[in-house]
Amino acid sequence: MKTHHRLLLTGAAGGLGRELRTRLKANCSVLRLSDIVALETAESSEEITTGDLANAAFVSALVKDVDAVIHLGGISVEGSFGPILQANILGLYNLYEACRIEGVKRVIFASSNHVTGFYKQSETITPAHAPRPDSLYGVSKAFGEDLSRFYFDRYGIETVCIRIGSSFAKPKDRRMLATWLSFNDLHRLISACLSAPVVGHSIVYGASNNSVSWWDNSAVKHLGFVPQDSADVFKEATFAETVSPDINDPTAQFQGGGYVVLGPQGFI
Amino acid sequence: MKTHHRLLLTGAAGGLGRELRTRLKANCSVLRLSDIVALETAESSEEITTGDLANAAFVSALVKDVDAVIHLGGISVEGSFGPILQANILGLYNLYEACRIEGVKRVIFASSNHVTGFYKQSETITPAHAPRPDSLYGVSKAFGEDLSRFYFDRYGIETVCIRIGSSFAKPKDRRMLATWLSFNDLHRLISACLSAPVVGHSIVYGASNNSVSWWDNSAVKHLGFVPQDSADVFKEATFAETVSPDINDPTAQFQGGGYVVLGPQGFI
Amino acid sequence: MKTHHRLLLTGAAGGLGRELRTRLKANCSVLRLSDIVALETAESSEEITTGDLANAAFVSALVKDVDAVIHLGGISVEGSFGPILQANILGLYNLYEACRIEGVKRVIFASSNHVTGFYKQSETITPAHAPRPDSLYGVSKAFGEDLSRFYFDRYGIETVCIRIGSSFAKPKDRRMLATWLSFNDLHRLISACLSAPVVGHSIVYGASNNSVSWWDNSAVKHLGFVPQDSADVFKEATFAETVSPDINDPTAQFQGGGYVVLGPQGFI
Amino acid sequence: MKTHHRLLLTGAAGGLGRELRTRLKANCSVLRLSDIVALETAESSEEITTGDLANAAFVSALVKDVDAVIHLGGISVEGSFGPILQANILGLYNLYEACRIEGVKRVIFASSNHVTGFYKQSETITPAHAPRPDSLYGVSKAFGEDLSRFYFDRYGIETVCIRIGSSFAKPKDRRMLATWLSFNDLHRLISACLSAPVVGHSIVYGASNNSVSWWDNSAVKHLGFVPQDSADVFKEATFAETVSPDINDPTAQFQGGGYVVLGPQGFI
Amino acid sequence: MKTHHRLLLTGAAGGLGRELRTRLKANCSVLRLSDIVALETAESSEEITTGDLANAAFVSALVKDVDAVIHLGGISVEGSFGPILQANILGLYNLYEACRIEGVKRVIFASSNHVTGFYKQSETITPAHAPRPDSLYGVSKAFGEDLSRFYFDRYGIETVCIRIGSSFAKPKDRRMLATWLSFNDLHRLISACLSAPVVGHSIVYGASNNSVSWWDNSAVKHLGFVPQDSADVFKEATFAETVSPDINDPTAQFQGGGYVVLGPQGFI
Amino acid sequence: MKTHHRLLLTGAAGGLGRELRTRLKANCSVLRLSDIVALETAESSEEITTGDLANAAFVSALVKDVDAVIHLGGISVEGSFGPILQANILGLYNLYEACRIEGVKRVIFASSNHVTGFYKQSETITPAHAPRPDSLYGVSKAFGEDLSRFYFDRYGIETVCIRIGSSFAKPKDRRMLATWLSFNDLHRLISACLSAPVVGHSIVYGASNNSVSWWDNSAVKHLGFVPQDSADVFKEATFAETVSPDINDPTAQFQGGGYVVLGPQGFI
Repeated sequence: MKTHHRLLLTGAAGGLGRELRTRLKANCSVLRLSDIVALETAESSEEITTGDLANAAFVSALVKDVDAVIHLGGISVEGSFGPILQANILGLYNLYEACRIEGVKRVIFASSNHVTGFYKQSETITPAHAPRPDSLYGVSKAFGEDLSRFYFDRYGIETVCIRIGSSFAKPKDRRMLATWLSFNDLHRLISACLSAPVVGHSIVYGASNNSVSWWDNSAVKHLGFVPQDSADVFKEATFAETVSPDINDPTAQFQGGGYVVLGPQGFI
Repeated sequence: MKTHHRLLLTGAAGGLGRELRTRLKANCSVLRLSDIVALETAESSEEITTGDLANAAFVSALVKDVDAVIHLGGISVEGSFGPILQANILGLYNLYEACRIEGVKRVIFASSNHVTGFYKQSETITPAHAPRPDSLYGVSKAFGEDLSRFYFDRYGIETVCIRIGSSFAKPKDRRMLATWLSFNDLHRLISACLSAPVVGHSIVYGASNNSVSWWDNSAVKHLGFVPQDSADVFKEATFAETVSPDINDPTAQFQGGGYVVLGPQGFI
Repeated sequence: MKTHHRLLLTGAAGGLGRELRTRLKANCSVLRLSDIVALETAESSEEITTGDLANAAFVSALVKDVDAVIHLGGISVEGSFGPILQANILGLYNLYEACRIEGVKRVIFASSNHVTGFYKQSETITPAHAPRPDSLYGVSKAFGEDLSRFYFDRYGIETVCIRIGSSFAKPKDRRMLATWLSFNDLHRLISACLSAPVVGHSIVYGASNNSVSWWDNSAVKHLGFVPQDSADVFKEATFAETVSPDINDPTAQFQGGGYVVLGPQGFI
Repeated sequence: MKTHHRLLLTGAAGGLGRELRTRLKANCSVLRLSDIVALETAESSEEITTGDLANAAFVSALVKDVDAVIHLGGISVEGSFGPILQANILGLYNLYEACRIEGVKRVIFASSNHVTGFYKQSETITPAHAPRPDSLYGVSKAFGEDLSRFYFDRYGIETVCIRIGSSFAKPKDRRMLATWLSFNDLHRLISACLSAPVVGHSIVYGASNNSVSWWDNSAVKHLGFVPQDSADVFKEATFAETVSPDINDPTAQFQGGGYVVLGPQGFI
Repeated sequence: MKTHHRLLLTGAAGGLGRELRTRLKANCSVLRLSDIVALETAESSEEITTGDLANAAFVSALVKDVDAVIHLGGISVEGSFGPILQANILGLYNLYEACRIEGVKRVIFASSNHVTGFYKQSETITPAHAPRPDSLYGVSKAFGEDLSRFYFDRYGIETVCIRIGSSFAKPKDRRMLATWLSFNDLHRLISACLSAPVVGHSIVYGASNNSVSWWDNSAVKHLGFVPQDSADVFKEATFAETVSPDINDPTAQFQGGGYVVLGPQGFI
Repeated sequence: MKTHHRLLLTGAAGGLGRELRTRLKANCSVLRLSDIVALETAESSEEITTGDLANAAFVSALVKDVDAVIHLGGISVEGSFGPILQANILGLYNLYEACRIEGVKRVIFASSNHVTGFYKQSETITPAHAPRPDSLYGVSKAFGEDLSRFYFDRYGIETVCIRIGSSFAKPKDRRMLATWLSFNDLHRLISACLSAPVVGHSIVYGASNNSVSWWDNSAVKHLGFVPQDSADVFKEATFAETVSPDINDPTAQFQGGGYVVLGPQGFI
């Protein structure tokens, strides 16, 4: 359903951005796309811009006349703090300030399961559990959740923070049998966030209907997300292609998987 | 399954009463029906009575030889406090006193989502959340929940309080996509309450299997209610027929919808 | 501290009313007193009225020009439902309607521990536990808590519901060693409710600093109530004057004590 | 999927043991079977031993070269404390000591719903609720849960405690409509416990997808158990063959059913 | 206050037993004392017996004509499982069976903080947290808590389980600044358990009013325990006499202190 | 007690820094002081440095040979995001990186009540409630809490985050009667954080023993903070000097007080 006139998709050149670019056309009349790198030529009903989220003037123009934002932009993997500071912290501040000034009232923010990556794989958590980020990247996503909470309480800008699991064409390892989010389920979740009359400030995990799950989303049933895909169909093949993990390895113990050893100078 | 010999359905002339009149015949051998207004002629295996719940003598006769009560009677919309006091407060007291004296041990009480109508539509609540009624009507239903709790703790009369969402042939607006309870699901829920060996004093929300939901019933799985219908099939049509709400409007913000502005002298 | 110009104390002729009549002069310039029975002659800075809370016109005049209400009025013991309906249900509705119309913004409502009297004496509960009233009286106080919640959510009238334990000159039995609230601690609690800048809608238990307590008020530290008295000083004498209870007796098992057998036609 | 080379199944001669003997071959290359009574002749890929769990030397040999243990052994019904002490307490200590010494790192322990049998049938509980055993048998299973917790925290041996409901070919009475666990769902649950990369120390209820349920397993979604069968298909027949229970009978009130009156010298 | 005629104190020859022997005379007319080793000659108003708790006949005679039991008996330190099985598991079963048969209705059971010794010293826990025993001794105390729960739910025998911290003349190391329970506070706690009209089945931590505490007893305020002593007065001396712990040492990390490395064959 | 050899106090030139400079000498042999502005001449046992926290090299030198850090540095009021980004976000990252590299294992981080300033003054919250920052400053402090959590989970650096209320010589308005933290209580809290053997990652509110409080610290009793001062002694004077707030004013409604309207471009 086309619930909005103009949507903005940031980070449109990335892996998920390309998947959503085609799917989000069903949700709006005009899809504005942006990235720091050049995007493919605009199709009809598309608007394309290129620029840096750390540039406030660019971001201000970006959100003008937009009805809602799907924000995938910024850095989406662990790395040095400098770029994360620019893209995910200053960039996010620029985005919310622009939304406040331009009157954009709803943001769908691509947060990450790495906000809570230091919980054990033998725990089931909910969005109400305290953050335990597994990386500087995860810390920057926690920052985004707090910043958006402030812009909601203070200025009424609604945000859904989606803690995306592992959104790929199919699970790549045993961990992703629990964390996998199909592209179509990601689109279903975003569509639910767009069509709900009221979302307030909500935090939700983004995963398909996998039998194994570390996340219980029942506290956010008001969003109406019901995944239709499941990693289970890949279970047998994934087991065949991978070896049983050493459960004393932190990457097997913790939900964040490989991220828990990526921080500065490795695990001590 | 005919789990009971004689059931009493109060409020049988109302919208839900008429729907249940036909369906409840499957649950019992004799269906006694009552309302304050005249009912259509009794069919075979029906018993019909007319009277006022505020009349203790009438109510006393009403519950005689009954195995369980489905209580829809009383006022089911917001209005002046006088009639609510008579029908929903004094009337309910009369009903429980009659059950105590006549030895009726199970009541299914039509409570309402308006007991918690002042929670936000961006919250998911459970029956354990404290009441936040949105109307004098909602307050009277909260009274019924407390009164029935007393009759359970003190006299062992079991009650299931069903906080009915919006039970109509189909959803009438976007809010009802979350609150809709099909007539058949209402009957399924009542049947579950009738066939469970033990229900104690339980409070449950009554809604179909809608993707969007503000209510988490998992704390009352012991009742065995599994809805089979869903408002989702009406989503597209409902969106087409209605406009996007202003999220600053209290009727869009709160779960009670329109009720939150119906109290005495409107919203200040 | 005189935090208000004019306070209204209802139920001023009752046991607690007489105790508060003298103490509340410290909190205001003018103390308006009312009861259904005649009060002693007004002293300076007192205003005296007599009337029935079930009379809306009387209540309307009662609250005019009042800055806050301390509501002890109505029936304060278990009894027939008719008078409770008039005084505690209709009377309370009249009070809140009058406050709404006259612009009174804060009510201190004498609720009762009998709202939760069917919890065991071996349980420690908080104001967030669901009501389990032990009597029709207790049900009427639960009604008051729900009604006042509605008037807060809908009209912004703040209420503190004080679930008063046993407020007497001294504990009368072993149960009151847990439930006792000295007159001075009652006054301290009311003073705290009056001087707090914001109280919202709060529910608090009213008990002195007794070593044995069934109630944990830590969720309402924002009210600033710190009791100074304790039933402990009466423990030895109370034990000497009373016999050890039979723990199979419901009045010893439940927090409500004797009330749990006072309902219609005794315990079955 | 064959996730392990050699699995040990204790209690293999019992009712569930015989059902699992055939099914577990799908999970491993070699299935070692043991019981205190003689087992049927070993088939290919089976290893058979006979002995007493109270005999430490026997147990030590039993777990040698095993990759994981499915422990059904011991006494599985209420009875005298002496044999329970030997089989379920000393026997379990022997098992965990043997696992510690031999380096076995995962145990699937057949605990029981009777660990929490004194909760009401009108309550829905989770594995986080405190134990309320209904029998000496239930107490011995609670001991097993605590002992295995110690061996996990202290030595890193992972255990899933499965609080098995009623695992029979079909439900035998109305209570089992809530507690039934099909043999295939039991096997699915054990398979999930075997294939999960990490299980830590987890407690889960074992029941099929019955509409009526007293147990909410959502806190252990990380195990990935999704039942495929349901007692619902037996509901009509079970109701036809059984009479409505007296709800004042403890066996109808409590989740443990008949067990709650089996303790020494019956219910007082 | 002498609240009981005859009290039984088991384990009377141990460190705490000797301290309580003198203090408990204030609580009763007759103090029966028992231990597996010989006790000093009985003073007036004392009764002395010697025997093994694993001997059912001995225990049966022990509890005859007793009004309440303070059970310190059994093994109170980590050690081999055999003796723990005899004294703390079989012995406790014998005690409760004897109480059931002889009609003793209240037991004060010396449980231990080692039931939850595997929580971190940087956590504050309550009696509602799940057991995480740090030793076989701790497991045996968890068994006692579960067994006593069964005897309460099934036979109405009330028990207070006191998870004693470190009860010595004064704290011996930095850990005990948090866990210390003075002898007088232990006696106060037992006195509270004896004088409370109803205790049901309660679990409480036993510690003095130490500034540092890992345990929050607020859920059991109904017991009325208010400690009067504090380890704080020993803080400066204890710091002077001890060195700062290595926080990577498990004995510094976990609440159980040294116990967490005492299990079979040391920490792996 | 001198629990450490060398402590580092950042932000030593600020209001709280100056108060702590004198008091912290009791806790260590050498007190290193730093600020971005020049500090008064070093006294004996002091080391003084001046520099910018956004300068990684400066921070690296700052923490060398330090046993623990008390971090008050950075911006402590609401303001433009640029300086907050430099001092409170990049500066904090520099501090933790320096601690990681130099092996400093404990940080006491001056967080702020403004992390949760958008809770109502009529709510009592605990450190487990989700952040609801009231300002960009508050968001930056929430960032610090998350970053320090990461450095604890990943590198074992312990942090206590103190959400300081209002630490001044005396309360300046009615709100501070709830939020006031005396200088001596601040020092007591820091001393508790220094002397506790293990603190893990803990979050605690910093307030004196004020009768009115919005914060319940009972979940962090393991820190051993027991305030000795109270704002109550200033209550009468503060009421006399200030007027009753308008409860519809956001600054009176929310815990953050004036901060809730300080964000970019004021309250809309």
